[in-house]
Amino acid sequence: MSRWAAGVEYLGSSFSGWQAQPHAPSVQAELEKALSRVADHLVQTVAAGRTDAGVHGFHQVVHFDSDARRTPHAWLLGVNTNLHEHVALRWVQPIRDDFHARFSARARAYRYVIHNARFRSALLEGRAAWVAWQLDAEAMHRAAQVLIGELDFSAFRDAECQSRTPMRNVHSIRVRRQGLFVVVDVRANAFLHHMVRNIVGSLCDVGSGKRPETWIGEVLASRQRTHAGMNAPAAGLYFVDVEYPSEFAVPVAPDFWLP
Amino acid sequence: MSRWAAGVEYLGSSFSGWQAQPHAPSVQAELEKALSRVADHLVQTVAAGRTDAGVHGFHQVVHFDSDARRTPHAWLLGVNTNLHEHVALRWVQPIRDDFHARFSARARAYRYVIHNARFRSALLEGRAAWVAWQLDAEAMHRAAQVLIGELDFSAFRDAECQSRTPMRNVHSIRVRRQGLFVVVDVRANAFLHHMVRNIVGSLCDVGSGKRPETWIGEVLASRQRTHAGMNAPAAGLYFVDVEYPSEFAVPVAPDFWLP
Repeated sequence: MSRWAAGVEYLGSSFSGWQAQPHAPSVQAELEKALSRVADHLVQTVAAGRTDAGVHGFHQVVHFDSDARRTPHAWLLGVNTNLHEHVALRWVQPIRDDFHARFSARARAYRYVIHNARFRSALLEGRAAWVAWQLDAEAMHRAAQVLIGELDFSAFRDAECQSRTPMRNVHSIRVRRQGLFVVVDVRANAFLHHMVRNIVGSLCDVGSGKRPETWIGEVLASRQRTHAGMNAPAAGLYFVDVEYPSEFAVPVAPDFWLP
Repeated sequence: MSRWAAGVEYLGSSFSGWQAQPHAPSVQAELEKALSRVADHLVQTVAAGRTDAGVHGFHQVVHFDSDARRTPHAWLLGVNTNLHEHVALRWVQPIRDDFHARFSARARAYRYVIHNARFRSALLEGRAAWVAWQLDAEAMHRAAQVLIGELDFSAFRDAECQSRTPMRNVHSIRVRRQGLFVVVDVRANAFLHHMVRNIVGSLCDVGSGKRPETWIGEVLASRQRTHAGMNAPAAGLYFVDVEYPSEFAVPVAPDFWLP
């Protein structure tokens, strides 16, 4: 039995989330079906992070075990040919047996894309969140810096979050304007359920002028979910990177093209 | 009866083309349905260019006549609320009665987006053409310059093209690499059926090294469709701009975000 790692890209709006579940299309089920066909035995995958319904994967990382003798290139071609059109393997490589896509990860990064324009876009439907009122990205960036560090993120945690602890270590958070887009990049050791979307929803209240910049720190300190802003829609969220110890030599995420 | 002009954006892959037709979803039918609901009478539209199935509209321009008294803002909000999620009005404005979206147009511009990477992308499915072998964008650009001017484009014309003449005036054609993308921008007074896609298909034969740069001129001179390359897929094609005489004061196309 050999262990393999793979990079996976998917369009979240076509699935009810990463995780396989009965009676609902999932990225995991589609991927395992295609991997199993190429391996010629049942293959199970473990992902770095289980994204919610509608959340996109740009560089999700998985591992799986197989005794099939295949080259990385054979896996890639075979699996991509058998996969749903809105899921794609970007790379596959053999990896040490002690690699675990979830537990070996040291950091994850998400990008949240806001289309900030007076009218909605047909081409961006399901691919970016739409905010009609003008956002001040610089104010959002300044306000967000209070979230950096090992902190209690209870205020930005979904009621259904099953993590044992509300503590997470946010390494960096950057908000910037790129033309019609406001882009939020967050990197942390790990994330609570809905954490990025709750943070972005609250930052939008600052960006629109509804709340002062200092409000984000107050929400954080309150540790009450009811004090934060709305949960931003899944459509704007992309899982863009996973960081592993260098000894595993996992490929780095490619440049994201939007935007 | 007043005449109105409007800018329309749409995701081509959700429709069987611009033009209304029985038993197939079209952008025109969706738009006219929403306009008619807001106007409270049947509204017909005329578009600057009738795009094929799968071809996207980033800045299509239409005109329509209505005796409904509505502000531009009321049209925009009302129509967008009633529209299919993959069609959106970007602007609406009253316009002179002698404006005609198709016949007043002096130039049209298309952008063709090629995702040039070894493996297919799930997020770009239906939104860009995928070419796996490395393309030389600079060679493609040089080869394309022979297509500029008032020329006979029979070699790049679909067999079903209904234009009376194969002559078109190409104002500019630019091919450039942007990271993982090769982008082809073409501006002309008008286009023959499949003209951009046939040109791009042929340019890809130059970019891949299958044909020399001088070959594009030879194909053009042959005036034989069978001499050109493959018809590039609709998914990569975006109708991005229409140019009208300045006295009509039609809004200019916004910046395109991909890529």
